[in-house]
Amino acid sequence: MSRFWNDRTKGIQPYVPGEQPEDPSAWVKINTNENPYPPSPRVVEAILSEMGGKQSLSGANLRLYPSAEAAPFLDAVCERYGLKRSQVFAGNGSDEILAFRFMAFWDKNRPVISPAVTYSFYPVYASIFDIPYRAIPMKNDIEVDCDAIAVQKGGVVLANPNAPTSIALPLDDIRRILEAHRDDVVLVDEAYVDYGGESAIGLITEFDNLLVVRTLSKSYSLAGMRIGFAAGNPELIEGLRRMKDSFNSYTIDRLAIVAGAAAILDRDYFDRTREMVLATRERTAEKLRELGFAMPASSTNFLFVTHPEHSAKDIFSFLKEKKILVRHFNTAGIENYLRITIGTDEEMDRLLSVLKEFIVG
Amino acid sequence: MSRFWNDRTKGIQPYVPGEQPEDPSAWVKINTNENPYPPSPRVVEAILSEMGGKQSLSGANLRLYPSAEAAPFLDAVCERYGLKRSQVFAGNGSDEILAFRFMAFWDKNRPVISPAVTYSFYPVYASIFDIPYRAIPMKNDIEVDCDAIAVQKGGVVLANPNAPTSIALPLDDIRRILEAHRDDVVLVDEAYVDYGGESAIGLITEFDNLLVVRTLSKSYSLAGMRIGFAAGNPELIEGLRRMKDSFNSYTIDRLAIVAGAAAILDRDYFDRTREMVLATRERTAEKLRELGFAMPASSTNFLFVTHPEHSAKDIFSFLKEKKILVRHFNTAGIENYLRITIGTDEEMDRLLSVLKEFIVG
Repeated sequence: MSRFWNDRTKGIQPYVPGEQPEDPSAWVKINTNENPYPPSPRVVEAILSEMGGKQSLSGANLRLYPSAEAAPFLDAVCERYGLKRSQVFAGNGSDEILAFRFMAFWDKNRPVISPAVTYSFYPVYASIFDIPYRAIPMKNDIEVDCDAIAVQKGGVVLANPNAPTSIALPLDDIRRILEAHRDDVVLVDEAYVDYGGESAIGLITEFDNLLVVRTLSKSYSLAGMRIGFAAGNPELIEGLRRMKDSFNSYTIDRLAIVAGAAAILDRDYFDRTREMVLATRERTAEKLRELGFAMPASSTNFLFVTHPEHSAKDIFSFLKEKKILVRHFNTAGIENYLRITIGTDEEMDRLLSVLKEFIVG
Repeated sequence: MSRFWNDRTKGIQPYVPGEQPEDPSAWVKINTNENPYPPSPRVVEAILSEMGGKQSLSGANLRLYPSAEAAPFLDAVCERYGLKRSQVFAGNGSDEILAFRFMAFWDKNRPVISPAVTYSFYPVYASIFDIPYRAIPMKNDIEVDCDAIAVQKGGVVLANPNAPTSIALPLDDIRRILEAHRDDVVLVDEAYVDYGGESAIGLITEFDNLLVVRTLSKSYSLAGMRIGFAAGNPELIEGLRRMKDSFNSYTIDRLAIVAGAAAILDRDYFDRTREMVLATRERTAEKLRELGFAMPASSTNFLFVTHPEHSAKDIFSFLKEKKILVRHFNTAGIENYLRITIGTDEEMDRLLSVLKEFIVG
């Protein structure tokens, strides 16, 4: 504590991201839902081109400020998702968009509601901006209770598919929540939607209270480049822009802008790597069930698993000793679950073999 | 206005950055204080290396989250400036650090004071975080009134050298303000210090209320990469970290981190390009004086000029017609000044020739 800190700084419990080991190559790192495959080769080409092209890599462009709106990236988003520029906003990762969103639309008189088990950054945002936050209890520990959310008053934040549970809500449930909250902003965080969820982007013209947030950190293999976007009604987008322009004019650098644009437009590469992750997920889920693990059907690039005979903490520690990093949350109701990112087939084989050693001996 | 905006969003007047033309190469762009020279060649090398090295440019690392603290960049800052890791903080441009700083240390009961003519983002930060902001009138329109700042109660934000005036305060004045505000945080924004100011970084161990903020956008030619840092007492640094970790865990991407580290460690290149800018500045100032312009001695990479016979607005418009972009501010007391970034010698020659055409005919 410092005498210079204000109440906000003193009171906050910062978000704790998954562990990032110093030398990731020494680990089977399946704890933060990164893509096991590199980004599209077009990403590297675009970065080289922005630095002057292969023949004259001077990096001279880097001396100039980037587009404050990340225009080339937003143009690519519009092309890919059939949106207009007034309907999209780019952020330094989807987390930044979430932060601007809590800043722009809610306050101490406009509470926000969210499932009790979800992305643990949401209550932190509510706390730094002094917004009442209501965590709605889950059904059966891990299922989102849409009925309870629909009847509560306030803005809504939903990850769909949800993390860390891996479960997707059907679009009908999202629609029901949007209808029940016509006068509140409903944020749908679709970080994992490419792995099996139904996107709500198609609903933004029908519902002016809907804001959909996406990241390029997962299905586009760009966690290292910090880029995400939001889609919604132009008034909501303008609200985000006002916050950004009052906080940091240029949040996405020149290389991230062109990397994001190139990734989002390489549809073939996206489809191919997504299929690889989905195939590995199904194979891994089956083998984990053979070892006695239970899990909900995953619509994400991770599995949320529990074992009837072994504590998640014990399994976590054993895996860590063997240089395999998964994620465990000390959250009521899910203490006995582990979140396991889908890696390459080789990484999953290593995981399965170590788990077999632990369980079967 | 949208019914979904909260009072913060409705009330704010966002900062307006200098114009960024779509095709900068069609302009003599001397309006946003960018460096006319490319970044160090080591920056390009570091970016290629992070993407796998020249032989195998897979970009595979980009799939992994970056260091949340931008550790490799902070290590370079510590090496270059003789600081400890607990004394430094990295941000997505210095603007982001300024935002976290207003969030972390001031509030409606802790006002902030600043010279009336300075970086126009400061009052915007105060406004979004509901912090009373007192603008202290200038002496002779453009000089910071240190005596008035020393006797006022509250935190202090000072750009030193100041923008857009280009004038530096001697370190003794900074020390006097620090002593007068022992119980308030004093932020010294040293965006332009490399061009002639005296840095206050050496005072951070003596004054626990001092936070110095730096950007790599100017003297390191990296405006396009969005990277800056703060130096101060570990308690102030920890306050910034708490805000960042409650707002956006990873604000600086992998390529920006290595670019920043490489730039800051290439001392020779830094010295060489800085000398070039300084030489061009002195030559340009002399020629402008020959054309009748008056200006304070500049300690920055720009000149703040006024002409006794011609309005700054008219000169601005004439230059813009000729595809030369400088900056004009509609701010009381400085309406008749222009801020001109130091470009290459060729760009300055073009500027001087067009100004001669305007003034002499």
